[in-house]
Amino acid sequence: MKETRICILGGGGRLWPIQFMKDLAFNPATKGRVVLYDIDYKAAQNNVEVGNRIMSLNKSGDRFVVEANDHLKTALSGSDIVIISIEPGKTEARYADLILPEKYGILQSVGDTTGPGGIIRARRALPIFFEFGRLIKEHCPEAWVINYTNPMTLCTAALYKVFPEIKALGCCHEVFHTQNYLAKRVGEWFDIDTPDRREIKIDLCGVNHFTFATSAYYKGEELLFRLKEEVKDSKTFPDLTEVALKRLKEEKWFECDQKIALSFLKEFGVLGAAGDRHLVEFVPYYLDSDETLHRYGVIRTPYAWRERVAQEKRNKSYEDKELIAERSDEEGVDIMSALLGDFVMVTNINRPNEGQISYLPLGRIVESNGVISENSIRPIIASDPPMSVQTMIRRVSDVQELTLEAIYNNDDEALFEAFISDPLMTLNLKDARGLFEQMIEESDKRM
Amino acid sequence: MKETRICILGGGGRLWPIQFMKDLAFNPATKGRVVLYDIDYKAAQNNVEVGNRIMSLNKSGDRFVVEANDHLKTALSGSDIVIISIEPGKTEARYADLILPEKYGILQSVGDTTGPGGIIRARRALPIFFEFGRLIKEHCPEAWVINYTNPMTLCTAALYKVFPEIKALGCCHEVFHTQNYLAKRVGEWFDIDTPDRREIKIDLCGVNHFTFATSAYYKGEELLFRLKEEVKDSKTFPDLTEVALKRLKEEKWFECDQKIALSFLKEFGVLGAAGDRHLVEFVPYYLDSDETLHRYGVIRTPYAWRERVAQEKRNKSYEDKELIAERSDEEGVDIMSALLGDFVMVTNINRPNEGQISYLPLGRIVESNGVISENSIRPIIASDPPMSVQTMIRRVSDVQELTLEAIYNNDDEALFEAFISDPLMTLNLKDARGLFEQMIEESDKRM
Amino acid sequence: MKETRICILGGGGRLWPIQFMKDLAFNPATKGRVVLYDIDYKAAQNNVEVGNRIMSLNKSGDRFVVEANDHLKTALSGSDIVIISIEPGKTEARYADLILPEKYGILQSVGDTTGPGGIIRARRALPIFFEFGRLIKEHCPEAWVINYTNPMTLCTAALYKVFPEIKALGCCHEVFHTQNYLAKRVGEWFDIDTPDRREIKIDLCGVNHFTFATSAYYKGEELLFRLKEEVKDSKTFPDLTEVALKRLKEEKWFECDQKIALSFLKEFGVLGAAGDRHLVEFVPYYLDSDETLHRYGVIRTPYAWRERVAQEKRNKSYEDKELIAERSDEEGVDIMSALLGDFVMVTNINRPNEGQISYLPLGRIVESNGVISENSIRPIIASDPPMSVQTMIRRVSDVQELTLEAIYNNDDEALFEAFISDPLMTLNLKDARGLFEQMIEESDKRM
Amino acid sequence: MKETRICILGGGGRLWPIQFMKDLAFNPATKGRVVLYDIDYKAAQNNVEVGNRIMSLNKSGDRFVVEANDHLKTALSGSDIVIISIEPGKTEARYADLILPEKYGILQSVGDTTGPGGIIRARRALPIFFEFGRLIKEHCPEAWVINYTNPMTLCTAALYKVFPEIKALGCCHEVFHTQNYLAKRVGEWFDIDTPDRREIKIDLCGVNHFTFATSAYYKGEELLFRLKEEVKDSKTFPDLTEVALKRLKEEKWFECDQKIALSFLKEFGVLGAAGDRHLVEFVPYYLDSDETLHRYGVIRTPYAWRERVAQEKRNKSYEDKELIAERSDEEGVDIMSALLGDFVMVTNINRPNEGQISYLPLGRIVESNGVISENSIRPIIASDPPMSVQTMIRRVSDVQELTLEAIYNNDDEALFEAFISDPLMTLNLKDARGLFEQMIEESDKRM
Repeated sequence: MKETRICILGGGGRLWPIQFMKDLAFNPATKGRVVLYDIDYKAAQNNVEVGNRIMSLNKSGDRFVVEANDHLKTALSGSDIVIISIEPGKTEARYADLILPEKYGILQSVGDTTGPGGIIRARRALPIFFEFGRLIKEHCPEAWVINYTNPMTLCTAALYKVFPEIKALGCCHEVFHTQNYLAKRVGEWFDIDTPDRREIKIDLCGVNHFTFATSAYYKGEELLFRLKEEVKDSKTFPDLTEVALKRLKEEKWFECDQKIALSFLKEFGVLGAAGDRHLVEFVPYYLDSDETLHRYGVIRTPYAWRERVAQEKRNKSYEDKELIAERSDEEGVDIMSALLGDFVMVTNINRPNEGQISYLPLGRIVESNGVISENSIRPIIASDPPMSVQTMIRRVSDVQELTLEAIYNNDDEALFEAFISDPLMTLNLKDARGLFEQMIEESDKRM
Repeated sequence: MKETRICILGGGGRLWPIQFMKDLAFNPATKGRVVLYDIDYKAAQNNVEVGNRIMSLNKSGDRFVVEANDHLKTALSGSDIVIISIEPGKTEARYADLILPEKYGILQSVGDTTGPGGIIRARRALPIFFEFGRLIKEHCPEAWVINYTNPMTLCTAALYKVFPEIKALGCCHEVFHTQNYLAKRVGEWFDIDTPDRREIKIDLCGVNHFTFATSAYYKGEELLFRLKEEVKDSKTFPDLTEVALKRLKEEKWFECDQKIALSFLKEFGVLGAAGDRHLVEFVPYYLDSDETLHRYGVIRTPYAWRERVAQEKRNKSYEDKELIAERSDEEGVDIMSALLGDFVMVTNINRPNEGQISYLPLGRIVESNGVISENSIRPIIASDPPMSVQTMIRRVSDVQELTLEAIYNNDDEALFEAFISDPLMTLNLKDARGLFEQMIEESDKRM
Repeated sequence: MKETRICILGGGGRLWPIQFMKDLAFNPATKGRVVLYDIDYKAAQNNVEVGNRIMSLNKSGDRFVVEANDHLKTALSGSDIVIISIEPGKTEARYADLILPEKYGILQSVGDTTGPGGIIRARRALPIFFEFGRLIKEHCPEAWVINYTNPMTLCTAALYKVFPEIKALGCCHEVFHTQNYLAKRVGEWFDIDTPDRREIKIDLCGVNHFTFATSAYYKGEELLFRLKEEVKDSKTFPDLTEVALKRLKEEKWFECDQKIALSFLKEFGVLGAAGDRHLVEFVPYYLDSDETLHRYGVIRTPYAWRERVAQEKRNKSYEDKELIAERSDEEGVDIMSALLGDFVMVTNINRPNEGQISYLPLGRIVESNGVISENSIRPIIASDPPMSVQTMIRRVSDVQELTLEAIYNNDDEALFEAFISDPLMTLNLKDARGLFEQMIEESDKRM
Repeated sequence: MKETRICILGGGGRLWPIQFMKDLAFNPATKGRVVLYDIDYKAAQNNVEVGNRIMSLNKSGDRFVVEANDHLKTALSGSDIVIISIEPGKTEARYADLILPEKYGILQSVGDTTGPGGIIRARRALPIFFEFGRLIKEHCPEAWVINYTNPMTLCTAALYKVFPEIKALGCCHEVFHTQNYLAKRVGEWFDIDTPDRREIKIDLCGVNHFTFATSAYYKGEELLFRLKEEVKDSKTFPDLTEVALKRLKEEKWFECDQKIALSFLKEFGVLGAAGDRHLVEFVPYYLDSDETLHRYGVIRTPYAWRERVAQEKRNKSYEDKELIAERSDEEGVDIMSALLGDFVMVTNINRPNEGQISYLPLGRIVESNGVISENSIRPIIASDPPMSVQTMIRRVSDVQELTLEAIYNNDDEALFEAFISDPLMTLNLKDARGLFEQMIEESDKRM
């Protein structure tokens, strides 16, 4: 068992750092030091305390030292693993991402990955990641870097832009939800206990949050074949407006019934492999109105709630039972173990395209399966989806590339080209220009 | 001078066949036989009479025999050159293409190339071209085939689909208009007589009707550089609503001021190289409303006018002065001469991609410059436009490929995938499905 | 546990069929029926007896029925797995492959994969594989097909040529030897027991018998780094002529010390990952004379021995102890189990290129790692070797493609183009033509 | 008519500078200044005198000023056109290129482009071209650069390596010889006067000195078809040993009968489009012995003659009649005129691959047809030769790339990888290493 130095950027956060430390506590094959860095140093210090409670409660205090560090360079220096999970700018800046487009008739359910909101959020986030990449190159070039921050694809791409040899990947749990959905259906179909999601083997392709399963297996049974039969039946797509309104009332933003994922299967022959609220943002078919969206049971997460919750999280204190580690659905610690040589692991990862996605240029950050083993991640070539889906993915990836280049060159004129190329943008040029300028102004103001 | 057998499919038409015969009469280096074929045999016979008058009036009666032929196979048999310029289905079928989308809020200015109208028109046209391709393979496989029919890209692609070795190209005069515009500007800038459009050298890329100039030269002077300065000035884009309304009243559908072409130059750095009424149909920025469109001086050609004019053309009789040949702007006869070995010619052509458009798959029908000489057309590699433009072109080409495959396989479900992938389609799936089914029904009814 | 029907083509052989049945007997997770087909029906019948003894001796008689079948179509019909391990033509035909080139000064150590011998052997083998492919398409299109026959790449390619949707792969144990060599070295370096070869993780690329390791790991330790230090030392390359002569005398054709594999590491930076006797045949550096070859401890397997041993094998009878199953180094049965959904397996496979080898055209049969799971083989993208090695691999693959096309088209003129393009061919055209014609004549005579 | 500043690097030479000035004198559409630079300043000064005589004798004194300049930077500064034609190192250094390989049994007929001689010559030449490229970037980045120096491909590639935006091309007259040969044959076949070579249209592909015609036309007549019939007849390939020996005696090194070019047509289906003495150096089929070579009428240019002639040229004085300008076969001045906007020209050029050669990576310097017009060179896509020829070209280009990278990185170990990858190298590694080290030593000594 090797001593591992893990640096968490955004270490003051109340979500990923704590989950990650619980997973470390749960996995007895790890040991070393956790260094928490955050621009809010006090938040990082608070998490040291939480981290120590986690280690202690889970009898792992001898395995991990947790500490905060106020200097980015020394925090990174000598790290074996760097975890990045940050909020780029204040939560208030998301007003620009979400409320302004709505005024022009552009609805977004999440607004952090794609669409006008995703692009302006990227404009706040990427300069931070360019800086991270440069410092990693200088202070821990051999470290494996795991990014959780959205826009995932662009933030990961930003690291590679400034340090092409970086050993980085993006991790996202959206595909796990698809596996969980299929596991549940397997339970129903075969009248067995719901299997673990890891037993559902998906052949995956796309870019983060806009991914598709071209096949799915459980113990030799092909599962999409069954779903394809179901989606032919109009009963699979009842009007879920009532469900949506109930969810709206109960603030259950993240719940979904995979009706969008299944709608893709019906129209294009491949199953959407991300949450419905993400999938709808990459095409013009679902967000023309809340009425259309609600028919699929999907609701939009409002800015007001985000603002309120961000406030609540900052003040949250943890009870012991919240800090007890158990087998979680997150894979960060597993990936870390695999990279250190403990085992070989096949899972979905966001990585530069080496050919795993045949219809995208090399170098683009794409999501597909990969094999993780000793100090090595090798992509597995994804099966091709139908050409209509390739076209959609290609377009999304192209807009991402335009966005990356524009922000890298600090060129808002070029960024406007990306902005109007986004699938959600159907405004005429005058309105598009008006929206773009307002969003930039508000985003800058609230940064 | 070789005897050349030229077969004109759609030989009863009142536009291309007559212009083409005038061009033959004008070019003294040609001789042979013109065979007119049309599903309306009487129209072809009428054009024999017109053709004979043309030859006689232009003292070319000894060079060309003009005849009609009622059998497609014998008309094609032994041809050296095949010209295709047909109307796929009755003009009345265009009701489906144009009026129905409008009811769903989708405006189209031409509706014969792209958008829902272009796709449904392709559904009428392509089966005819599959048949043409098969018969050419059988009866005159060595003939050079020049297509003028819209949707140009798809009709030409259909020929290659069934006969990959066919020696076919698509010809279109839209780029000539751009050359004429630039020639006029050259006259103004340098205070000289407007030069011949052929003296304006354009580096061209794209797909038919959605083409772009990445550079333009007149005698060593780069011209886009000057235009780029102009488009920075807001005076280049005055509100042309009054002009548009006047054009509407005077039925001047084809007039334009290149404001859309220039708008592309402003936003994306390359000059649109087709008429504004075509360019607007490939992006969502100009057709959100007639108000937006009119601001650029562009108006939509209405279905009612098309219907009326089609009727008038059928009954038209020609005066002698209309049949006198002079140097025209069309290049069909020049291309024919070059292929027969008379000279080497560089011009814009629609051909399968062999790499001339680096960002499109091989085999797609693309428009760019080519060198035409003895029995040979070789593409010239086009310079790359900015990535934002590459993305737009790629998307349009992908939708064309989806359309081709769906129609080839007679698969309306697959055609619906193409339909909803088109840049003009921003309906939700329910509305899109409704429109699609109505258009097919009306198109079939009026075929 | 599923009932599996396994058809073995070349089921009368005395090597693979027997080993395969022993492996089936050893793996308790399999059951079903083994159908032996051979053009020598009697040999197949003899192996039924041997197979029954294997099942009985290993207490697996209740799991597998073994039978012979004299009709290729019924043998294949309904199979889940097809194993192919045949001798294309009589052993005597190898006279043409081995002796004739020697007369022209072209030495070959094996002569069944590449070089003039490999090409002429392919000319005997491929027509048989075209027939196999066509029959599999007709009688068991869903079967997984595992080929062991040389020339491996070309025989596997022949199956895909006639049936592109075939689910076939080529298996070869040469890489296992490289793993065993590294495992032995690991034992020495770390002073531990020699680990199992499966614990050595190799990143692999190339075409069968001409493969290279770009990295190798054991529990997080990179191994090539150590070897690169060693090859800098001239002591790593002593003159092994004496060793070679001893091997020659003792008929130890297959023994080697990896000096050729290490010589590639020295000159080109990547470790050869096949036996030395194979590696030397793809480049001109080692076979200019036996003297050069012997310096590396490598000897050539003579035709006379092959002829004698073939005779002996035919008459061989088995003792019980030879038929007792134990964990073997062959992976055929493991792969079969993985394809049936028992587990996920990463190993080296020969498969059509989907991009796993970035510098070879798609569709070529290449060797690299792949992930095998339920009814699915997905290639893992191999890391690129230095460009000098890419060039060598590309050339070999190109010659294979030329050979495949020529034999498919039954075109000996085209085959001569392949013949003179082979790395071992340095004759002038007159001599090359003479050799080619003699080899064909002899090969045909002894077929 | 624009004032043009032309800088000739190697301006003291006795071949290209003088021919080029004669061509300038002949073409009345040019005017400006010729600046001669040479490391041998005196030689440049001598050529100023010759240049002035040329201008005066051809009544062009008012159009061109000729001057010598002893400083590379000021010579380049402000140039519109840069011509490069230098000898890299002393002629004596060619001893290393030519004599040493012969001692190891490697025969070369020219030894300046490929083979061990070409590689070691490149090692002398490329550092000079890296310097030229850097200075052009600094002092005349907009200039068009025309290179005539061998190894042509590598010297041109070196310019792009250090200045990727350079506007450079390589010019070579070997293809003109092929056109002249075909023109002569056209005269025979059609019983007409030999037409001008420019009337022979060749579709060309390859890398410099290893180029192939896939088709050739004269006024609509395909010419390769006729030659293909001829090469089937063994009378087309008589034993030309006597001819070769006569040439040897008469020192007619450059004469040939295109028998090698035709031998490629016979074996591979495409006509070699360079002189036989160049073509033989890229494959192992002709240089195994002088006997083989002589059978085709080809002889090797000896080092001794080169040494003697170099000396003679230095001391040469010109008679008036040698300086009278007439229409020459060289195209440098024509290309210059076309780039200045005088006309559009289609000819063979050496340029970075933008896709004109489909089977080579982008960026490699390749030879094919291009369109030259106002400040623009656009490649024409070459038709593909058979795959066997693609493989040969690919291999040669790969070795060139390896050579370029190795010399750029000043890495002789990497250069050895290139050296042993060359088609002419069939030595074992020990001998190869010995030859390599001796050649480097001698080349360095005589540099």
